[in-house]
Amino acid sequence: MSTVSTAEHKAIFDRRESEVRSYCRSFDTVFVKAQGSTLHDADGRTYTDFLAGCSSLNYGHNDPDMKAALIEHIANDGIAHGLDMYTDTKASFLEAFERIVLKPRGMDHKVMMTGPTGTNAVEAAIKLARKVTGRRNVIAFTNGFHGMTLGALACTTNDGKRAGAGGAALSDVSHMPYEGAFGEDVDTLKQIGAMIENPSSGIDMPAAFIVELVQGEGGLNAASPKWTRGIAALAKKHGIMLIVDDIQAGIGRSGSFFSFDEMGIEPDMITLAKSLSGMGLPFAALLVRPEHDIWKPAEHNGTFRGNTHAFVTARVALEKFWDGDRFKREIAEKAEVLTGALTRIAGYIPGAKLKGRGMMQGIDVGSGELAGQICAEAFRNGLVIETSGGHDEVVKVLAPLTTPMEQFKTGLAMLEAAVGFCVAKPIAAE
Amino acid sequence: MSTVSTAEHKAIFDRRESEVRSYCRSFDTVFVKAQGSTLHDADGRTYTDFLAGCSSLNYGHNDPDMKAALIEHIANDGIAHGLDMYTDTKASFLEAFERIVLKPRGMDHKVMMTGPTGTNAVEAAIKLARKVTGRRNVIAFTNGFHGMTLGALACTTNDGKRAGAGGAALSDVSHMPYEGAFGEDVDTLKQIGAMIENPSSGIDMPAAFIVELVQGEGGLNAASPKWTRGIAALAKKHGIMLIVDDIQAGIGRSGSFFSFDEMGIEPDMITLAKSLSGMGLPFAALLVRPEHDIWKPAEHNGTFRGNTHAFVTARVALEKFWDGDRFKREIAEKAEVLTGALTRIAGYIPGAKLKGRGMMQGIDVGSGELAGQICAEAFRNGLVIETSGGHDEVVKVLAPLTTPMEQFKTGLAMLEAAVGFCVAKPIAAE
Amino acid sequence: MSTVSTAEHKAIFDRRESEVRSYCRSFDTVFVKAQGSTLHDADGRTYTDFLAGCSSLNYGHNDPDMKAALIEHIANDGIAHGLDMYTDTKASFLEAFERIVLKPRGMDHKVMMTGPTGTNAVEAAIKLARKVTGRRNVIAFTNGFHGMTLGALACTTNDGKRAGAGGAALSDVSHMPYEGAFGEDVDTLKQIGAMIENPSSGIDMPAAFIVELVQGEGGLNAASPKWTRGIAALAKKHGIMLIVDDIQAGIGRSGSFFSFDEMGIEPDMITLAKSLSGMGLPFAALLVRPEHDIWKPAEHNGTFRGNTHAFVTARVALEKFWDGDRFKREIAEKAEVLTGALTRIAGYIPGAKLKGRGMMQGIDVGSGELAGQICAEAFRNGLVIETSGGHDEVVKVLAPLTTPMEQFKTGLAMLEAAVGFCVAKPIAAE
Amino acid sequence: MSTVSTAEHKAIFDRRESEVRSYCRSFDTVFVKAQGSTLHDADGRTYTDFLAGCSSLNYGHNDPDMKAALIEHIANDGIAHGLDMYTDTKASFLEAFERIVLKPRGMDHKVMMTGPTGTNAVEAAIKLARKVTGRRNVIAFTNGFHGMTLGALACTTNDGKRAGAGGAALSDVSHMPYEGAFGEDVDTLKQIGAMIENPSSGIDMPAAFIVELVQGEGGLNAASPKWTRGIAALAKKHGIMLIVDDIQAGIGRSGSFFSFDEMGIEPDMITLAKSLSGMGLPFAALLVRPEHDIWKPAEHNGTFRGNTHAFVTARVALEKFWDGDRFKREIAEKAEVLTGALTRIAGYIPGAKLKGRGMMQGIDVGSGELAGQICAEAFRNGLVIETSGGHDEVVKVLAPLTTPMEQFKTGLAMLEAAVGFCVAKPIAAE
Repeated sequence: MSTVSTAEHKAIFDRRESEVRSYCRSFDTVFVKAQGSTLHDADGRTYTDFLAGCSSLNYGHNDPDMKAALIEHIANDGIAHGLDMYTDTKASFLEAFERIVLKPRGMDHKVMMTGPTGTNAVEAAIKLARKVTGRRNVIAFTNGFHGMTLGALACTTNDGKRAGAGGAALSDVSHMPYEGAFGEDVDTLKQIGAMIENPSSGIDMPAAFIVELVQGEGGLNAASPKWTRGIAALAKKHGIMLIVDDIQAGIGRSGSFFSFDEMGIEPDMITLAKSLSGMGLPFAALLVRPEHDIWKPAEHNGTFRGNTHAFVTARVALEKFWDGDRFKREIAEKAEVLTGALTRIAGYIPGAKLKGRGMMQGIDVGSGELAGQICAEAFRNGLVIETSGGHDEVVKVLAPLTTPMEQFKTGLAMLEAAVGFCVAKPIAAE
Repeated sequence: MSTVSTAEHKAIFDRRESEVRSYCRSFDTVFVKAQGSTLHDADGRTYTDFLAGCSSLNYGHNDPDMKAALIEHIANDGIAHGLDMYTDTKASFLEAFERIVLKPRGMDHKVMMTGPTGTNAVEAAIKLARKVTGRRNVIAFTNGFHGMTLGALACTTNDGKRAGAGGAALSDVSHMPYEGAFGEDVDTLKQIGAMIENPSSGIDMPAAFIVELVQGEGGLNAASPKWTRGIAALAKKHGIMLIVDDIQAGIGRSGSFFSFDEMGIEPDMITLAKSLSGMGLPFAALLVRPEHDIWKPAEHNGTFRGNTHAFVTARVALEKFWDGDRFKREIAEKAEVLTGALTRIAGYIPGAKLKGRGMMQGIDVGSGELAGQICAEAFRNGLVIETSGGHDEVVKVLAPLTTPMEQFKTGLAMLEAAVGFCVAKPIAAE
Repeated sequence: MSTVSTAEHKAIFDRRESEVRSYCRSFDTVFVKAQGSTLHDADGRTYTDFLAGCSSLNYGHNDPDMKAALIEHIANDGIAHGLDMYTDTKASFLEAFERIVLKPRGMDHKVMMTGPTGTNAVEAAIKLARKVTGRRNVIAFTNGFHGMTLGALACTTNDGKRAGAGGAALSDVSHMPYEGAFGEDVDTLKQIGAMIENPSSGIDMPAAFIVELVQGEGGLNAASPKWTRGIAALAKKHGIMLIVDDIQAGIGRSGSFFSFDEMGIEPDMITLAKSLSGMGLPFAALLVRPEHDIWKPAEHNGTFRGNTHAFVTARVALEKFWDGDRFKREIAEKAEVLTGALTRIAGYIPGAKLKGRGMMQGIDVGSGELAGQICAEAFRNGLVIETSGGHDEVVKVLAPLTTPMEQFKTGLAMLEAAVGFCVAKPIAAE
Repeated sequence: MSTVSTAEHKAIFDRRESEVRSYCRSFDTVFVKAQGSTLHDADGRTYTDFLAGCSSLNYGHNDPDMKAALIEHIANDGIAHGLDMYTDTKASFLEAFERIVLKPRGMDHKVMMTGPTGTNAVEAAIKLARKVTGRRNVIAFTNGFHGMTLGALACTTNDGKRAGAGGAALSDVSHMPYEGAFGEDVDTLKQIGAMIENPSSGIDMPAAFIVELVQGEGGLNAASPKWTRGIAALAKKHGIMLIVDDIQAGIGRSGSFFSFDEMGIEPDMITLAKSLSGMGLPFAALLVRPEHDIWKPAEHNGTFRGNTHAFVTARVALEKFWDGDRFKREIAEKAEVLTGALTRIAGYIPGAKLKGRGMMQGIDVGSGELAGQICAEAFRNGLVIETSGGHDEVVKVLAPLTTPMEQFKTGLAMLEAAVGFCVAKPIAAE
């Protein structure tokens, strides 16, 4: 445990950390250690973590097997940084990924080690889609979030984030309505088809669709298999690359390894990051159908592509959690508990709606103000949880998938209490 | 050591790793461990590392003090992933950075934790420069390299890399000649001034200059203090943000912690990555003068901003190497040895020229073909070294700054032998 | 009449005119004179003109009063070219335009003389809208046509036209569905509102809507007053400039002087060209609400802004046709005849639909192939008429508004005959 | 002569003409007629015209032969507007253009009738260059002016004009230094070559160079034949289209029909406008080498392409002035007088420099303030003359080429008097 006080630590942040910092404003304490689904702060308090590094910690904090493997690797002078040279560690990761993830699904994708951030994987995907098709336009969807570097930011929809570009062009992207964007009665798939197939729509034939099947930042909107298959069919018909951005919804979060498992589609490219390393270490990858893997060597590169420490923990994660069906069943069981609890909680708030699927569910409480109050109250009581959505109106549960059932239920009870507390008192007008 | 053969490992790379991989093509073996300046492959061979993760391993591989600190952190369940929440580890890093790096230089910069890749720090810098100035244009320089995501790529000059954009707009950037770009007799600073100050030049008043003071990828062109001060003066006169991209040249590589130390300039922003973590872990940061730190919370974000493992090792690196002058003097001593050796080696090749400064020096051998042959021959003899430059015509020495003098001299002798071997035999016509 | 043969003339076109020429391919003869609604070719044949210079000749060819005034102006050495200096001729035009057009409608718009082409007026409008609002995005609509220069082309939807940009960026424009774009049951206004008001739609808050109330090139889609008022209300609510592009639908074509007359809206800007000069001379103007007229002198300029010959004929046209209600009633009467005839003609073709309004009506015959055959057959019989629409599937009647009723009915009979001829014979499969 | 007073006319301009109007601010009177080189205002004053519609009236106002031909054409119901259909008038123009202009020079160019404004011809040229080469970047030069629509404006350099874009992207253009841009001792051609041939310059291989051989708006900078041939050679070597923008410098202004005559180059494309019609009527064209004429029909179009009235007068102009050498010799003689007079006048002002060539010469008087004072004083005395240059520092003589020698000398004497008046009195500090 830290030997300096929380106040002492905070002084340095005020003095030297950029104003851009954000989560620390909602969770205003200094964390010092974490295990499983529990965080500890410098004052000795503990918190149940229903944020999980925004889905980067699907297996919880400091999984003992990953820790052990990583410590052994370091102790033995295993490669820490190897650019994109061949290492035994990378080989072992790829072998596990092939055996456990790709082969059972009949996927022939190649793995591109991009810079170890989600936005880097997205940039690689859209660059490659443009190279493959010779087209420039990319279709992204309302409420989508794909990253903060300029190419990815052009796909991202949040206008506060877009303002960060400072007026630089966010070009070569058209935004189309996600499923349900205009209400349940409007078939957006049909409209997207109409826009693409009308030679005078003004929407240039796209290189790619980039889509999250559950929109993590955009408010937990979940695309149905039918809509998803429709987008895939449209892509196939017109030679459009289908890029599934599985950075937040993948690696088990939405119920199985990929968010599109069992939907009957075969994306041309898939972006992975967040929980890919298993332990929260920076790691991202782009899966690409081999016929589209037309990169020249180093045409997209980056110093930290292929974070070797992450290969070690990612391999352990695959072997421990995904070799067989057990973990998927556990997720399903927990997701059911989650749905039940959220249904009950939603009952406290007139008009509240359940959002999302799998272990990526939440409640649209109708306003960002109320959602913020709920999360703040929850944090006061020891639960780390955040909002999502265009107006921050969704209280989003992103608990580690490995959270012990008892702790999970306790966390949900804490959430229920926070909601109860907030709806009981009058809400100040905005 | 790995229990599978090199050949077995390579099969998986062929089968599953994207064609974009590159360094593994020059250094075609499977590495399994590394210590200091020595790499070990799966067949038991050892190599002296004169590439150092492209300057990401300035302190060599697996520094024992960093290892120990990191293992302790992991063993104690220290935070592995904390988004941008406050942690004791981040506080300790910032405190060390303030005390050892910023304060002694009188720098009041704030530290922005960007996504942990250099390109992310560059994107953050140019976004912020545009926000601060309300201008869109950024001036980057010939032969500059700043990253692969769209905003950074627009600044990067290499036409092979730019082709990777697949036709997407690389806009809002003007390229100007670096010092010496038109030969020694042409004063490019004067011309840049003329272009900026002519209201009918067609070059819109820029938000920023982004400049490397030694161009790592561009051929080890080193800007003189005079030219650098001229650019800084021009920036100050016109309210242009001066961004020094110190990702490759910083953290000791060019002779001191920052490449601009003792030049009498005060950059508005400085990008850092590569060796910042000390141990080759993904970590990048943007230093920003406080008056420019106008970000709204989360206006630029990223899941892996603030890699906690990297905070641990980065703090150790600062305390071990930069608390006092000793390390800087060691670098200077080694740089002198390097200059001497390269001067001798250049004598083998008619027209060869020394490039760079500090521990970032090399030889322009006149053609990419010859440079490639030299590096290949060196590798056959156990030396990992790479080329640089617009035509890959520069053999670049990027040895760890901590390389023991004996090993350093042996490595240089291996380079000399490779050059001797290559120039002795006739070179095939291109 | 020409003293050389048609064949001799055609040789020079083959030899020296660019392949970009197009109408001459449909109407493959050499025209030598024209009066009213009748064209004469070099071989002495006459044609009824149902194209009217794409609505540039709403008063027919060579109106005798305009001719007389122009000849007098030229004979008296009236200014032919005056840049944008003050001339008596410009004053007289502005006085007539104010008295006859603006004042009766209570419009306080200022008149900007742009370069004398429609695309120039559109460029001026979108530049000004961006200046006024400080926003970059412009919303244009499916099937819209706004011109061929880069800024206007970005608004234009036809993918063949867009391909002409040769890969240059067509940026800063979002395309939205026009009324009826997704069928009659889909309320596109509601969707446009949803996209604009969702802060995470990815559609940046626009500077302007640019809209044709009848889409001349896009297939004679006509916006209803209700939809139009909805767009206007959305514009007002969000400080978006409403630009009505009245280049083709204005100056009487759709029934009254402006296409939006009696709709209860007050556009911020209106583009005019085509029939503005009355006699087919190049002339374009942008009407701007005075509070938006924030141009600096010459901030948008052009050598031929303010074509003085066109001022002369435009003034005559206003005084002759628009001083009172008579002409408007004549148009209404003729439009009724047109609707009747087209209704009958549509009966020949299963599934055919009437499009447009006023004297800007046509028939969607279901395929571009059939529409092309009808127009070709009509031309063989002495009727000049063209197609429109994303698939060229609409046979479009753009007769001069002044066509004598007998000639008008005869022309419609010729069209009916051509349709009858074409549907009677089997159509080759595409 | 006008029957209303100047004051009455001006009221309507104040009331209804956009603030963008500009020349009327320098020449604040109402013009009513013009003949040759003489303008008449509503108050009966006469002015010698040394502006000539910015070189649109190279043959003076209302040439009697052009007038007669145009009146006859109108009186006979010749086509006034024919879209791009074949007409006898267009044929006659093309035949004259081929016989008098193209054939004697061995030029095989095709003529593209663009919209009748210079900017339209420029847009067509750069679109076509991009289509032909498959490249996007266009190189334009410091101090160049190419028009106000978005594609042309991206090439234009004046920052006031560029601000008119209101923040829309002015992309896909790189600006390079014109000859002499960095002083007489700097060889900009060599530098342009270096930027293009360095694969890491950041300047993407361009589709085109677009260059004015005398920069009309940019300050009468004149490219030497040597520099021009260097640019042409660079273009040829790299498959770059050479576009000579001859809108202001062509049609005799710089000494012969094309500004590049006798320079030994063969541009791929040439833009013409301004004086092309002969009488100041809107007319523009693009000349294209036949192998580059790869347009699809109507891929670039425009309602007023091929202004028939302009064909009539343009044909007369070619036959009257360019059939033989006489006119060229007259221009040369007058240009010599001009050079002599300007040399004498420059003697009044310390540091003044002669600029330009042919009948496109002026004096750089060192400041925009002084140049403005000189032009204002000249206008008070009956001479219409304007400034040019990045700082409006050049007094520019653009007299009609047909100005009678006596009137020309009188005009020059008026200019001399204005200069004398202005330099005699103290100039207020800026």
